[in-house]
Amino acid sequence: MPRHPHVSPTIAAMGGSVYSSLAHRLAAHRGPTYPLHIGDTWREPPAECQMEALRTADHPGLHRYAPVHGLPALLDAIVARERATTMLPVAPDEVLVTAGATGGLGAVAGALLAPGDEVLLLAPYWPLIAGIVRTMGGTPVPVPVFDGPVDAPTVRAAVEGALTHRTVAIYANTPNNPTGRLLPTASLEALVDVARAHDLWLWTDEVYAHYAYAAPHTFGRPLAPERTFAAHSFSKAYGMAGNRCGYVVGPADVMEHLRKVSTHTFYSTPTAAQVAAERALDGPGDAWAAEAAAGYAEVGAEAARRLGLPAPEGSTFLFFDVADALDAAGLTGLLEACVERGLLLAPGPSFGPFPTHVRLCFTAAPPEVVLEGVDILGAVLRARR
Amino acid sequence: MPRHPHVSPTIAAMGGSVYSSLAHRLAAHRGPTYPLHIGDTWREPPAECQMEALRTADHPGLHRYAPVHGLPALLDAIVARERATTMLPVAPDEVLVTAGATGGLGAVAGALLAPGDEVLLLAPYWPLIAGIVRTMGGTPVPVPVFDGPVDAPTVRAAVEGALTHRTVAIYANTPNNPTGRLLPTASLEALVDVARAHDLWLWTDEVYAHYAYAAPHTFGRPLAPERTFAAHSFSKAYGMAGNRCGYVVGPADVMEHLRKVSTHTFYSTPTAAQVAAERALDGPGDAWAAEAAAGYAEVGAEAARRLGLPAPEGSTFLFFDVADALDAAGLTGLLEACVERGLLLAPGPSFGPFPTHVRLCFTAAPPEVVLEGVDILGAVLRARR
Repeated sequence: MPRHPHVSPTIAAMGGSVYSSLAHRLAAHRGPTYPLHIGDTWREPPAECQMEALRTADHPGLHRYAPVHGLPALLDAIVARERATTMLPVAPDEVLVTAGATGGLGAVAGALLAPGDEVLLLAPYWPLIAGIVRTMGGTPVPVPVFDGPVDAPTVRAAVEGALTHRTVAIYANTPNNPTGRLLPTASLEALVDVARAHDLWLWTDEVYAHYAYAAPHTFGRPLAPERTFAAHSFSKAYGMAGNRCGYVVGPADVMEHLRKVSTHTFYSTPTAAQVAAERALDGPGDAWAAEAAAGYAEVGAEAARRLGLPAPEGSTFLFFDVADALDAAGLTGLLEACVERGLLLAPGPSFGPFPTHVRLCFTAAPPEVVLEGVDILGAVLRARR
Repeated sequence: MPRHPHVSPTIAAMGGSVYSSLAHRLAAHRGPTYPLHIGDTWREPPAECQMEALRTADHPGLHRYAPVHGLPALLDAIVARERATTMLPVAPDEVLVTAGATGGLGAVAGALLAPGDEVLLLAPYWPLIAGIVRTMGGTPVPVPVFDGPVDAPTVRAAVEGALTHRTVAIYANTPNNPTGRLLPTASLEALVDVARAHDLWLWTDEVYAHYAYAAPHTFGRPLAPERTFAAHSFSKAYGMAGNRCGYVVGPADVMEHLRKVSTHTFYSTPTAAQVAAERALDGPGDAWAAEAAAGYAEVGAEAARRLGLPAPEGSTFLFFDVADALDAAGLTGLLEACVERGLLLAPGPSFGPFPTHVRLCFTAAPPEVVLEGVDILGAVLRARR
């Protein structure tokens, strides 16, 4: 019972932003900067999806509340897209439009978790998922998978080894942020087997579905539609992260509970963002994403080559161990050495138990800027090895 | 431990939308409709704050993530505004920009509440606050206040009578949604006395601060800055509800915890919405709100007159008891009779223990439409009395 001046013990125990102190230092940096710590894109969204193209005269109510479920036109476009990609008979009541995939997975966690419930997070994982689970009263349990072989027997053994009587769900993010790897279809099927055997929910975070380079993306819902919530994002697909619009697809009988949570955390998804998303889905989005994917794959492969790493299979990130370049100042010392040269990276511990890794986003700036940043990193690492 | 196919018992116990079935019926209605159930405005925001006025060329990063704290220019504008209205030495780290006041109060509830903590809600209250408290694991406790005398001794006695050992906070919404009433300064001071005596937090929902007609709005934070979180909204102030942008101001040492919750429920507030809000604050917002307030006060007073009610003191709502017009079909029967005539109202139970009340928003449509709706309601009530 945290009365004034105390706060929720759960929230108090959570860390704050891991970036803020370094980001402040970057802001004070003189000379070129390389903000490769955040997962975003330098590309502008398609012209007809930009704010200046959205006219109130064409979209009555553009600045008014949208239905909490989502704008009907956007829901229709999402249903059509989901039917095409999953071959499932998707209906609008299986979809919830949300404030990005963050709002979507927050709604999933809020609807499903009771205090203390454990969610297995295939690690390294998208950093926000651990905080989302904690915010909704659950306990995130990292299960290292993407840092080693991702074949089905290995993945199954890792997940089965982490099960407890409190486990209620498995979270898998593929194409993976931060490792740039894909979870093979057989490994996703192994997750489904474990989930079915233990009555678990399956949360598939598929926000980088458009950005699978080494193989086509495997959609999660066709494997287990009765228990899978798939999160998608217009942020990543079409360069609209600031709009805050994504969606979740899941079993119809549970979606009403997700809607309660989203209604009480952000109410409705921004109306203009929904109009922009509908325009992307029904218009230039696919062409934009195909061009972006080609460019992302190229710069990702080149960045990896320069760092002596395998090319990313998907997503917009490289994640690698820099243990051999650390001195007594540890990872913080390395990150500070990078900031002194204008380069910002994300620290490994944000993604699970990876104390000596870093993440680099190769789409946060134009390719030439990214590759300059990569060269700076390479020089820093060489000087310290 | 709600494994598949079960959901969180807390969320399962919450009601879904109270509007949806009636709203669907309204959508099928032939002829003019009067959707006066939702709290929104028919007015368009100032021209330079509309989406089509926001150009990527003028606002680099317009479609990219904003800092989770808020855009620096908007934070500066909010700080200047808060200093002017509260005379407090407000600093940026006392402010959090949020996905509407909903996101802001969600962050407050998430940061402060442990499971089972009770929040006293001065009732009738803004409907979402009860669900926000529940979503974050707390227990909402309605304290009827705005349905009777709101003098300081009465308010104090009502709140003291509801205290238990689980009480951690008091929520007060003034200008009040749904009653259109103002909480007098002396009554707010009485709440502060109770809060200080029992180590409670004070949550003041001031989203209608621009819309106080009978007396100037009393800002909550100057009375108890050490324990007060004040929620504000650009939605209501400047007709931008669909943008999803508002803010919370509170004690600096707790705001970092609010930021954790907002980061994990909607991440950042929509970037374009923040640019629009900054433009409103630093530009035409005050003039727009003053003109809107004059228009709202006029139509509110006329709507009240036609229904035989006192003129609203603030906000954009009338809330009144229709018990004498109910038959065996109860409130639902009355609401259905209204829907048959194209008129949608919000049911009293959404606002607390008010089984025979209805709420009417007199700004959800242009004045002539609202007054037509009021006349339809008057006719329905007369026919049933």
